[in-house]
Amino acid sequence: MSRSFRDPSVDAGRVEAGLRTLAGVVEPDRPGWTRTALGPVDREGRETVRRWMVDAGLETTLDGAGNVVGRLRGTGSGRSLMVGSHTDTVVGGGRFDGIVGVVGAIETVRALQEAGVRLAHDLVVVDFFNEEPNEFGLSCVGSRAMAGELTTHHLGLSDDHGRTLADALGAVGIDASALLGARYDFSGVDAFVELHIEQGPYLEQHGSQIGLVESITGISRFRALFQGRADHAGTTPMDVRHDAGCAAAGTVLAVERIGSGGDRTKGTSGQVTFTPAATNVVTAHAEFRGEFRGPEAEWLHHAQDRLTAAAQEEGGSRGVQVEVDWLPLQEPAPMDESVVGTLAAVVDGLGLSSSRLFSGAEHDAAVIARQVPAGMLFVPSRDGRSHCPEEWTDLDDITAGITALTQALVALDQRGRR
Amino acid sequence: MSRSFRDPSVDAGRVEAGLRTLAGVVEPDRPGWTRTALGPVDREGRETVRRWMVDAGLETTLDGAGNVVGRLRGTGSGRSLMVGSHTDTVVGGGRFDGIVGVVGAIETVRALQEAGVRLAHDLVVVDFFNEEPNEFGLSCVGSRAMAGELTTHHLGLSDDHGRTLADALGAVGIDASALLGARYDFSGVDAFVELHIEQGPYLEQHGSQIGLVESITGISRFRALFQGRADHAGTTPMDVRHDAGCAAAGTVLAVERIGSGGDRTKGTSGQVTFTPAATNVVTAHAEFRGEFRGPEAEWLHHAQDRLTAAAQEEGGSRGVQVEVDWLPLQEPAPMDESVVGTLAAVVDGLGLSSSRLFSGAEHDAAVIARQVPAGMLFVPSRDGRSHCPEEWTDLDDITAGITALTQALVALDQRGRR
Repeated sequence: MSRSFRDPSVDAGRVEAGLRTLAGVVEPDRPGWTRTALGPVDREGRETVRRWMVDAGLETTLDGAGNVVGRLRGTGSGRSLMVGSHTDTVVGGGRFDGIVGVVGAIETVRALQEAGVRLAHDLVVVDFFNEEPNEFGLSCVGSRAMAGELTTHHLGLSDDHGRTLADALGAVGIDASALLGARYDFSGVDAFVELHIEQGPYLEQHGSQIGLVESITGISRFRALFQGRADHAGTTPMDVRHDAGCAAAGTVLAVERIGSGGDRTKGTSGQVTFTPAATNVVTAHAEFRGEFRGPEAEWLHHAQDRLTAAAQEEGGSRGVQVEVDWLPLQEPAPMDESVVGTLAAVVDGLGLSSSRLFSGAEHDAAVIARQVPAGMLFVPSRDGRSHCPEEWTDLDDITAGITALTQALVALDQRGRR
Repeated sequence: MSRSFRDPSVDAGRVEAGLRTLAGVVEPDRPGWTRTALGPVDREGRETVRRWMVDAGLETTLDGAGNVVGRLRGTGSGRSLMVGSHTDTVVGGGRFDGIVGVVGAIETVRALQEAGVRLAHDLVVVDFFNEEPNEFGLSCVGSRAMAGELTTHHLGLSDDHGRTLADALGAVGIDASALLGARYDFSGVDAFVELHIEQGPYLEQHGSQIGLVESITGISRFRALFQGRADHAGTTPMDVRHDAGCAAAGTVLAVERIGSGGDRTKGTSGQVTFTPAATNVVTAHAEFRGEFRGPEAEWLHHAQDRLTAAAQEEGGSRGVQVEVDWLPLQEPAPMDESVVGTLAAVVDGLGLSSSRLFSGAEHDAAVIARQVPAGMLFVPSRDGRSHCPEEWTDLDDITAGITALTQALVALDQRGRR
């Protein structure tokens, strides 16, 4: 790879300041660093990002799906490279998941500008709206909207209080019809790259500075509802009860059991509610949300069948009506071999140690990979922890990742010229 | 039994009006007929009861524990008979549980007065505060306070948000030290009788109009806490997780299994929470409250041991820390044979069909039975349903129960004179 310019240089202090600023935009009275997409402060977070983009010389747009999109014009024919991640968090989450990729993408623009490097491609930086699963069970809302994957079905998803996703979006200033119309024209995009923390222990365990993602997990999410009967807990014999809570508990264990049965597969349950919430009343209604993850679509379909059967059995033996609603399955997403090859060459050229790995975490890159050739760069997570306040990545690792991202964009830009 | 007076006559219309009035004092936006003791409207309900007592000629007191106590002076030496029940409900409860016993006791006073019957005993009518288990896991708060069974330990019990019972009592106008000082002097009380709906199917199945309670269940309540670790649900392999939710689910099933193992025993779980409530984060913390009931104290102790062991096993196999906090065990409470005999004779004399039975439901009578000879009269519950909006007892059955209660007080008064 020939270089005709001064090497762009990443400013670690500026990166750290960006991470610290976003860590201050969090929901009051919630644990960790909480900035949920449908919560009260996420919009302020994305506005902060938009201002950084403007300062870095990008033309910015807030699209109908809440995505912050910044464009640095290239010298060429108007073809683009896209880079980005998300800045929303889970409840009680950390300061790095997603945020590193957005702060890093903007730092890449600054580094290129300061080094006087002009790409032929337009460089499009995106802070994707609502990557983390919201209380309606939907994740990657912004990237799915850009990919044209959202329908009125998604907007009608309801939370545990009967509110629809459309209502919740409206409350944070996103109009449902604008969301459905926010499809992005990917025909001019040659590649997408996302920088992200690993969120697992693989890189740390293997002493690697950079992870080269080969494939992103498939995910199948569901909501399970159990309708039993409220009865007096003291007078209703055990064998005539319709205990929805016990049926739900048995199904939670089935999720764990099924998720443990495959290669790199997972099964997780959360958001459990029993109604009424009393110990002297047999639980009339219970529900929870859960998910399976795995690298093979076939296993995910199999897990769906097994979980539905297990839930029916747990309900059937207790006279409890069961309903398992599956969200559309997210297929496993292989990254583009050519993009991964370019990323690998850049990382090697920088003298950084790397590993190729599978991502058990979902990412906007999985959605965008269905539109354009995509790749991901991971940086290590201390102890593999993520989605918790303990989430941590050393600044040196983040800086190395941003440097790799910057050089990767230069390389992809040059590849496009060949 | 000789009678030197006109038979007291119960006014069914007045009883129905009383039930209807209290059914109108409910918490807005909650299911069924909800009037929780620590909620916003229970005080209004008890004030309604107090006004009825005053209208019926009783001298009333609101004691330090929130109990409404009315006294009808007798002609004799100042010894007393006590009668009463409660008017608080579970969330989503019905219109009869407890309420029938309070409305019925006041109707008894009216019927005696209208018939010109004066008892030698004082007649003390009590609307006991907070009989149903509150969100701190404590039930029979008012009767326990009268019995001197409450301690600062109880006041320090905390709910799922860390608030103490003392705080919650203060918010509804009950001072903690006044509660501890609300001990009633039972030395002058010869007997206690509580009229209540059965809350089970026994009387209906046996075609009986009246139930004569021989014994009230023992109860052992607990709060189980599970401390695991929040981790990313996509990147954390199943075998290294510390999933507090799965440990809790396994323990819920253990409650069901253990509760199903004895004679007339029950095990019930409720108030389950998983934190964080997300499907893409391994559950870090889970907790729930549960209870066992049974007629034998020995079985209850055994159930405690088995449940603690099961919870430790569910936690241990998942690297989850487990704590099971047991509330003081409520011993099974046999009713006084002599009082039950008097109730049986009265019911037979009225030509009412009856069954002797065991109460799987807890009652203030179980607490008061530790202070004075006590008995209970049950009236049938349609389909055995209770603690739900469908709870129903026919007005004819209620009237028969109140008539039996009235005659029983006359008989107990005369017995006292012998």
